[in-house]
Amino acid sequence: MPSDIDIAKAAKIKPIFEIAKESDLMEDELELYGKYKAKISLDILDRLESKPNGKLVLVTAINPTPAGEGKTTTNIGLSMGLNKIGKKAITTLREPSLGPCFGIKGGAAGGGYSQVLPMEDINLHFTGDIHAITTAHNLLAALLDNHIHQGNDLNIDTRKIVWKRVLDMNDRALRNIVVGLGGKSNGVPREDGFDITVASEIMAILCLATSLEDLKNRLSKMIVAYTYDKQPITCDDLKATSSLAILLKDAIKPNLVQTIENTPAIIHGGPFANIAHGCNSVMATKIALKLGEYTITEAGFGADLGAEKFFNIKCRYADLKPDCAVIVATIRALKSHGGVDKTELNHENLQALEEGYKNLQKHIENIKKFDVSVVVAINKFPSDTEKELELLYDRCKVEEVPVVISEVWEKGGEGGMDLAKKVVEIVENTTSEFSPLYSENESIKDKIERIAQEIYGADGVEYTKACEKQIKEIENLGYDKLPICMAKTQSSLSDDPSLKGWPKGFKITVREIKASNGAGFLVALTGNIMTMPGLPKIPAANNMHISDEGDISGLF
Amino acid sequence: MPSDIDIAKAAKIKPIFEIAKESDLMEDELELYGKYKAKISLDILDRLESKPNGKLVLVTAINPTPAGEGKTTTNIGLSMGLNKIGKKAITTLREPSLGPCFGIKGGAAGGGYSQVLPMEDINLHFTGDIHAITTAHNLLAALLDNHIHQGNDLNIDTRKIVWKRVLDMNDRALRNIVVGLGGKSNGVPREDGFDITVASEIMAILCLATSLEDLKNRLSKMIVAYTYDKQPITCDDLKATSSLAILLKDAIKPNLVQTIENTPAIIHGGPFANIAHGCNSVMATKIALKLGEYTITEAGFGADLGAEKFFNIKCRYADLKPDCAVIVATIRALKSHGGVDKTELNHENLQALEEGYKNLQKHIENIKKFDVSVVVAINKFPSDTEKELELLYDRCKVEEVPVVISEVWEKGGEGGMDLAKKVVEIVENTTSEFSPLYSENESIKDKIERIAQEIYGADGVEYTKACEKQIKEIENLGYDKLPICMAKTQSSLSDDPSLKGWPKGFKITVREIKASNGAGFLVALTGNIMTMPGLPKIPAANNMHISDEGDISGLF
Repeated sequence: MPSDIDIAKAAKIKPIFEIAKESDLMEDELELYGKYKAKISLDILDRLESKPNGKLVLVTAINPTPAGEGKTTTNIGLSMGLNKIGKKAITTLREPSLGPCFGIKGGAAGGGYSQVLPMEDINLHFTGDIHAITTAHNLLAALLDNHIHQGNDLNIDTRKIVWKRVLDMNDRALRNIVVGLGGKSNGVPREDGFDITVASEIMAILCLATSLEDLKNRLSKMIVAYTYDKQPITCDDLKATSSLAILLKDAIKPNLVQTIENTPAIIHGGPFANIAHGCNSVMATKIALKLGEYTITEAGFGADLGAEKFFNIKCRYADLKPDCAVIVATIRALKSHGGVDKTELNHENLQALEEGYKNLQKHIENIKKFDVSVVVAINKFPSDTEKELELLYDRCKVEEVPVVISEVWEKGGEGGMDLAKKVVEIVENTTSEFSPLYSENESIKDKIERIAQEIYGADGVEYTKACEKQIKEIENLGYDKLPICMAKTQSSLSDDPSLKGWPKGFKITVREIKASNGAGFLVALTGNIMTMPGLPKIPAANNMHISDEGDISGLF
Repeated sequence: MPSDIDIAKAAKIKPIFEIAKESDLMEDELELYGKYKAKISLDILDRLESKPNGKLVLVTAINPTPAGEGKTTTNIGLSMGLNKIGKKAITTLREPSLGPCFGIKGGAAGGGYSQVLPMEDINLHFTGDIHAITTAHNLLAALLDNHIHQGNDLNIDTRKIVWKRVLDMNDRALRNIVVGLGGKSNGVPREDGFDITVASEIMAILCLATSLEDLKNRLSKMIVAYTYDKQPITCDDLKATSSLAILLKDAIKPNLVQTIENTPAIIHGGPFANIAHGCNSVMATKIALKLGEYTITEAGFGADLGAEKFFNIKCRYADLKPDCAVIVATIRALKSHGGVDKTELNHENLQALEEGYKNLQKHIENIKKFDVSVVVAINKFPSDTEKELELLYDRCKVEEVPVVISEVWEKGGEGGMDLAKKVVEIVENTTSEFSPLYSENESIKDKIERIAQEIYGADGVEYTKACEKQIKEIENLGYDKLPICMAKTQSSLSDDPSLKGWPKGFKITVREIKASNGAGFLVALTGNIMTMPGLPKIPAANNMHISDEGDISGLF
């Protein structure tokens, strides 16, 4: 196999206006960003208001393992496979963060023969959405510190500022800092820190907003600090809402690109999948549903985090009815869940597969709880044996769930045709009965316990003392009627990353609850979540090269 | 007069590809960014290599006063005036920084009937150039701190790190900070700070680079820190050059927009005019010279800083031969230089004008030292009296320099036709004999003294002890054969902002010398230069509004 970048370079990319034309976008609904990227005007939703939506397919996965699953690749390949069997499909994906590109080699635009193009642009500045979020976020931080510097009329307690600063960079030295040093004319000293931009609440808001009006409304409610009287101070209290929205006026428009086989791809927004909901923007999904017969979308991490939040947060707010969920797994990853070391994954091991399969089994059970149809996609590797595949077919048959081999990495759309056919068969013969797992009006603890027991399979939930206090405070402030956003390890169904497969007989511990009041969810943290990555000993940046003619190597 | 934004909204903006076509740009040399902005491929310089350059006109000014001069407005209006008299003219301007927009009301895209469009975009994210610089700058900072965290093989003295971080934001709380707190896994604690992005050496480099190759070469030489043995550590020592250049691969391409009368405008780069050279990019100027008969360009602050650096730094490196310099002044500003208070400027005051004229007189003398022709443009105000104008004509006649009334703010290109005619008359009847004031091979002190004595009219230069030491260090490292970039108050020809008009009998004091080794100049600081602005008591952000339909008000 050639490298990803060589495959990408050899692909026949079309001018983006051609892709747009084929998707029935009008010329004035498009803003070109170079020849191969465009922003889509939100006006399109008015024009197509009466057009029925296409079908919505979520691509999710088992709990991630070091063996890799290939969720994004499957998403892209499935959309290309659908096109190959005559269905008009559109893939919608998350926008990658630029920072990590320079740390550990690897972009986030698919791989092999299932990629989105132009991969270099998508992985770097793209159309500037994340830069706009960085700017809006830091403007609010500057306005906050300026307010305090200019007399602090709002009585803000500088020890209770919850709005940090952000950069789209892996920079551990900025995690914990002290600002405002250097005397009276340089602000008020206080502890502060930087997160990576995609962890900003503004990213979550951009991805949940259903219009510019809704964006402004959500921005206005973001909590930035508390007063000495413990009252929340919001973005609106700092009179900052409109200036932030002005900075985001273009970023709110979804971005149109294409797959390696010229399938339209809408890539927009990329919030964290732990402290936020991990899905591409609502606007991207809504536009795709109007343009295509099939919209393929994704959610971060495994189905316990990604699909759960997609259903309970995104679909709830956007009033979406998913028609099918594809759970991606590999034989290797299932064996890893069965206890096999990474170095031994190329050997047949039916016992480990049997054990690891239970992780997949639990995710199948979970998706069914939302009344959504399930297909299992096995992302095929050369090391998979016939016996292993047979065992998997047998087990899934018991669950009455179809299993399809996917070879999209090696073969592109052709390798996704079987999966596409199965998805079409299921979607065309069922009606979505989707409903969220809980009502947002339940108590905070009830909501958390529903997720922990029904999705994770926990026996119960424990709360730290600090957390109990926070829950009371949130209830007193009236912020409790919001969906829950669980921040939990992605490696296990439990909150202990070492528990693989389908762990049982455990409780989870919630250590902290934070109101992301603008985004519209309560973040329940079960451990420390890293919101500013660091660079490794030898950063990928060290091995990059750009020639005098502009040819790049080493970026992926 | 309607407001700037109302004038801008009423203007008949053309699709940018039409402007490009009229300027003989080929379709594949253009990358659209929306309908009204485009990046120009550097390949155009190869295609047009054998085409002779057009004429180059610098618009500069007297020392700025609170009364305002209107340099950018005159630049734009002159280009429109030239077009009105049948000359193909292009204006090249600096790219405004986004940060200040949210502080004190006011953009940087001209004013009245001499504006560039789309003004909202130009003043906000534009095509993302400044965001790219922010990212490249902060990547280098992250790589530097990561190097130290991972063992500090290069033996960097953390007390001698000269590479700060940047944001395109007015944020005083970030001027002086401590980073790397929170224990071993979060980096090494040290003092640090943020500058505003346009103060980054990378901005100066982007504006001086003549190709991607030259960009890489300059980036590689940037000094970020010194070792315990006092040896410089460069960007290249951190193996960061290519990754920074990759981040800048699009930012290096100049941006095409248009004036309110559809004259092509190339807006690209905007370095500080004190610690850097304050001119738009070399690439923008070079492309404009190939596309138009007349290129109008500008430089920051008054001619003592702006024109001096344009001639001695930009023209030296880019091998440009300016054909004419327009010095912009207003009767009001000259009276201000004559000692009149801002509140009294609307009254006739011939004595003050006579005194203040000397500031203009010195700038005329200075431009002539570079063997460049001079035209004085008086940006007319309703308060100007006949007697005042006559006095000015008389004084300039003694200098054998033409004076032309400019009414571009009120009348657009029509108000700039007289100025355009005069510029054409001069340029068509003279050949540029331009040469820089000094050789870069002179000693540091000789170069500084040449500028101080010949341009500022100082009796001499004093150096602090610390500065004497720095000069020796720079000489020992072999960085002394570079042009000088003076960082001095813009308000006076001297280094004392209170000395108006043409001060005499003063010395200037150089307090610090820094090698901007990548940009290719030595910064000589005569005082503290603020490189991170703050927000005012009531920031402009507080009074901005964006409607649900996206209509913006209060931004300008």
